[in-house]
Order: sequence, then C-alpha cells, then structure tokens
Amino acid sequence: MAVYTEVADEELEAFLEPYGLGQLLSYKGIAEGVENSNFMLHTDKGIFFLTLYEKRVDANDLPFFLGLMDHLAAKGIACPVPLHDRDGKALSELAGRPAALISYLEGVSVKRPQPRHCAAIGRALAEFHLAGRDFKLSRANALSVSGWRPLFEASRAQADGVLAGLASDLESELTLLERDWPRDLPQGIIHADAFPDNVFFLGEKFSGIFDFYFACNDALAYDLAICLNAWCFEHDGAFNITKARALLQAYTEVRPLNADELAALPLLARGSAMRFLLTRLYDWLNRQPGALVSPKNPIEYVRRLRFHRGVTSPSGYGLDA
Amino acid sequence: MAVYTEVADEELEAFLEPYGLGQLLSYKGIAEGVENSNFMLHTDKGIFFLTLYEKRVDANDLPFFLGLMDHLAAKGIACPVPLHDRDGKALSELAGRPAALISYLEGVSVKRPQPRHCAAIGRALAEFHLAGRDFKLSRANALSVSGWRPLFEASRAQADGVLAGLASDLESELTLLERDWPRDLPQGIIHADAFPDNVFFLGEKFSGIFDFYFACNDALAYDLAICLNAWCFEHDGAFNITKARALLQAYTEVRPLNADELAALPLLARGSAMRFLLTRLYDWLNRQPGALVSPKNPIEYVRRLRFHRGVTSPSGYGLDA
Repeated sequence: MAVYTEVADEELEAFLEPYGLGQLLSYKGIAEGVENSNFMLHTDKGIFFLTLYEKRVDANDLPFFLGLMDHLAAKGIACPVPLHDRDGKALSELAGRPAALISYLEGVSVKRPQPRHCAAIGRALAEFHLAGRDFKLSRANALSVSGWRPLFEASRAQADGVLAGLASDLESELTLLERDWPRDLPQGIIHADAFPDNVFFLGEKFSGIFDFYFACNDALAYDLAICLNAWCFEHDGAFNITKARALLQAYTEVRPLNADELAALPLLARGSAMRFLLTRLYDWLNRQPGALVSPKNPIEYVRRLRFHRGVTSPSGYGLDA
Repeated sequence: MAVYTEVADEELEAFLEPYGLGQLLSYKGIAEGVENSNFMLHTDKGIFFLTLYEKRVDANDLPFFLGLMDHLAAKGIACPVPLHDRDGKALSELAGRPAALISYLEGVSVKRPQPRHCAAIGRALAEFHLAGRDFKLSRANALSVSGWRPLFEASRAQADGVLAGLASDLESELTLLERDWPRDLPQGIIHADAFPDNVFFLGEKFSGIFDFYFACNDALAYDLAICLNAWCFEHDGAFNITKARALLQAYTEVRPLNADELAALPLLARGSAMRFLLTRLYDWLNRQPGALVSPKNPIEYVRRLRFHRGVTSPSGYGLDA
C-alpha cells in the first residue's frame, strides 16, 4: 500500500458510535489496497472493514462507489456493502479523510485460478452486468482508450529501457486501437478490475467480488476482455484456452454476447492488455525504493498484447464460431 | 512495515492443516510490525494471528520468543500464545520463512495513556517479571549499554544535522553511562519494548501485553525505566509525574524495588532514553523515501534524556523518599 493513515483509538471509537456496533474489541491496519488505508475491525457485532479514502481517490466518486455496492447487494450480488449510520449515511469522516464502514466479506483469493474459478468469475461478471443495468449514477472510464495516450507519453522516453523496441511497438498499437476501437457495443457499469485478487472463493465456491474503485460506465464486453487477461494466462505467460472457454461460456449463459461484441473480443482484449501494460509501465518506471508493494513487471502484458494480435476470431478464445 | 511476504492461498491452506483449525475463511496481511510479516486469519475456529519471521529476526531466537509466550501464559499473564500443531510444534515454515500461528489477542492500544493505564502497565510489568523468573531459556540484550556505542558511531557524523551539538552531547552522556551503569541489580526476563502500542486495553481494563521480540535478560528495573519513558511523557514532551507515580506505585505493590534499584532509577531512565534515541536516530538517518512506516523523530528522546539528567532521586518520579 502506498499510503497509510494512522487512526487513534479515541477517534475510532467516536467514529463508530453512530453505527451501533457495540464495543470495539480490536482493529488492525490491513496491508491491502494501493489507493486507500484499510482496517479490519472486530466489535461485539462481528468483523467489519473500514476504508479511509486517500488523495488518489476523488471524493466526488465516493457516492458512486458506495451507492453501487448498495445497489448490487440489493440485486443479490455477493459483495461487501457499506454500513449506514443512525442517520442513514454511508459516508463519514475519520482522521481528516472520507471514510466508510463496510461489511466484511469472507473468502480467499486464488493465486492459481483453475477453469472452475474462471467459470465462476464469468458467471459472476455477467450477473454483475445485469444487476448494474438500472443503477442511476454514472462514472466515466478515465482509463479507456482516450486515456491511454497520455499514459503512454508519460513513459515513452524510458519504455525502450524496459524492453527494446517497446516505444514504437506501443505507438503503432495505440494508433490502431484509437482508430478501430468499437464505439457501439452495449454499455453499462463495468467492474474494470476483476482480477483474481478482487474475487473471493470459499473452498470451491465463489463467495464474492469486491474493490469497486475502478468501476465505471463502459462497454460490458470490455470488462470480459479484462477478465480474459486477468484469469486465462498461466504464470509462465502461456494462454490457457480451456480457462478462456470456461470463462466465456459461463458468462454468455447468463448474458449472451451479440455479434458485434463477439467480433470485437480480440480488439477489446488488445485494448485491455494495453491499459494494464501502460499503468504497470508507468508504476514500474516511477517505483520508489523501499515501498511496501513492489510494482508488477509490465512485460507480461506485452506478451499478452502480442498474443491477442494473433487472435482473429472468438474461436481463438475457445468459443464456437 | 519494512518487509512483507506474500502468501498464496494453497500454501497457507497446506500450512494450516496440521493445526486443525477448520476451513480458512479469510486472511489479510497486517500493516503492523517492522521486523516481520503478519497476517490475521479467520477460520471456522475463530481469529488467529500468523507471523512470518523475516531476516531481521534471528531464527535462533525463535524458541526463546515462542517458549516465553507459552511460559508466561501458563503463569496467567494475558498475552498471545503460539498454537501447537498435531505434533506439538509451535514453529513451522511458510513461504520459505520460519512461521508461527499465534492466538489472537483482543484489545486496543491507547494513544493517550491516562494515569489508570500507567498503573495497569506498572502492575502488568511486575507480574511479567515475576512470571519470567523460572523461564529456562535466556537471551542477551543486544541493545543494552554495550550495544549503544556502535549504534552511536553509525550515526555520529550526521547527528549534528538532526540537532546542533547532538554528537558531543551523546558522546559525553554515553561515556558517563558506560562508566556508571549499574551491574548488580536484580536480573530476569524483561519485555524491553513495553510501549503503549504493545499493550492492549478493552474499555478501561488491561487486556494483554504482546510483541516479545525484544524480550531478553537484563535488570528488571531497566524495564520499568523503559516504561517511564514510554508512558509518562505527554505528546508535547512534558513529563507527567502523576502518571509516573501511578506506574511506579502499581509496579512496587506487586514487586517491591530494593534500595539499589530505587537509587538507580534516574540513571536507568537516562540509559533507556539513550537506547531509543540511538535506534530512532539511526532509523531517521537511514529512512527510505516511500516506506510505509515513517521513522519516529529522535528529538523527543533528546528531551527525555535531558529531563532525566535533572532527576536526582526517585522522588523526581513521584515516589516517596
């Protein structure tokens, strides 16, 4: 975690009072989340999660994020929900920061997803997309195609130091993506970061999805393309078509893809690889010695991008033509 | 926390199996402890603490630390205890590191201790000292008087950059401490780091003491002098004699101090201030930008050291002559 706010016992007890959670038994700062400071709380009433929103999160987005969790949970999506205080408020303040108490979601993230896990996230993502349809608030995707060039420009000069030829490779890929990016696909609320660390399982069973702080409005199929990158490559970089098939089939059983979405999948997957490549490249080039969370090497996303360039139809992802 | 090891779900589940704690429901890395990686685990059987010992902890010391917790708990001291696996082992291995599962101690650290908290830690420290008397293992105090000069030498050249005149002030203080340091006081197991963050309360009640990773054999009264520094100064640097009296009276009700210990208190308090001043000075001068835990400013210990120089008898700490 890049930032970390300390919270004093008295402050925390005063903050908790309007939620009626009984006596505070213990609390611990959690080494999780790059954007926020998180705490695990234990009170008479159980375990809870406390998030303090740090500078990198725009406070204007908080009603969107918290409202989305409420909305999804009301639709039956397994996810954490904000607690509301006596006056019905979900957003409060602690240690000079916007803060929210959130229900504690049990579960464990899988480090090596199997096809059954990919099927579970495929199904969950489709249900998430359906549940989000009538959510009233909206939020633009700052990390969609129009956001990539500024990110690229911030890293361009040093890109070849990471991998020879990377700058010109990204330049031509970006030009193509900007030209061909599909604009007319079905839109809705997307999670935009449904990586294995943001999904929990209990034993074999999916137990919930969380960390909605990249959620926004965008093409639903783009979210699926993000999951292809996040769930269907092995640690050695190889694409696992069995996992992709499991993911896509489970998704389409809940929300079928239309012909445009199917045709766009390879390009969406290239775009999604580009998005994570660019943020990782930036974080890699701007990493700080001694930071707790070491940035992830961007190279694995170069490989993914190149893989998707070779895919010409959805059958490359295991879907029948 | 300076170091942090990631643990994969499968590894952790395999590690947990011999402890018979049921299904793993969740685990979180804890932003706590500078020396180790810590996790909070939730299983069918409750909440547990998992510690992975990183390089800064000498693996040879682990039987001492874990054995001490077992010993103290058996004597009725409220503290975390290591869990033993099916074969009776408390020390295991995870992610290539020595690892121990430890019971979860409920409680909250007080950021602004009141006299009643000082009395509670005084009593608890005396009980700790009595309980430690027949502990069979021993461990030298690497941060006692003989360890201070090497620490000072590592910071001397830059000390005046922190505070003008600090290098010569510490040089003469150190020479005096080395010459006059009392050698014949009652010895035993000391906690050596019983700061408010290592002590828990539940409401008004003391609920336990933890973090024994500086525990060692040394003069018992030196441990009390550490607590004088740790509990009896206000955030603005002022000494609070009411808190000191509460601490010392509660301690001596359980373990009376002999005449030598009483007379040595001011010097022990100077030595204790020197010890924390030197480690903080070193960490301050060697701090890393972007590190999670920012080092504590050593200046407050310069002030404490100067305060204790002016104390000529235990009455300066609120004890009757």
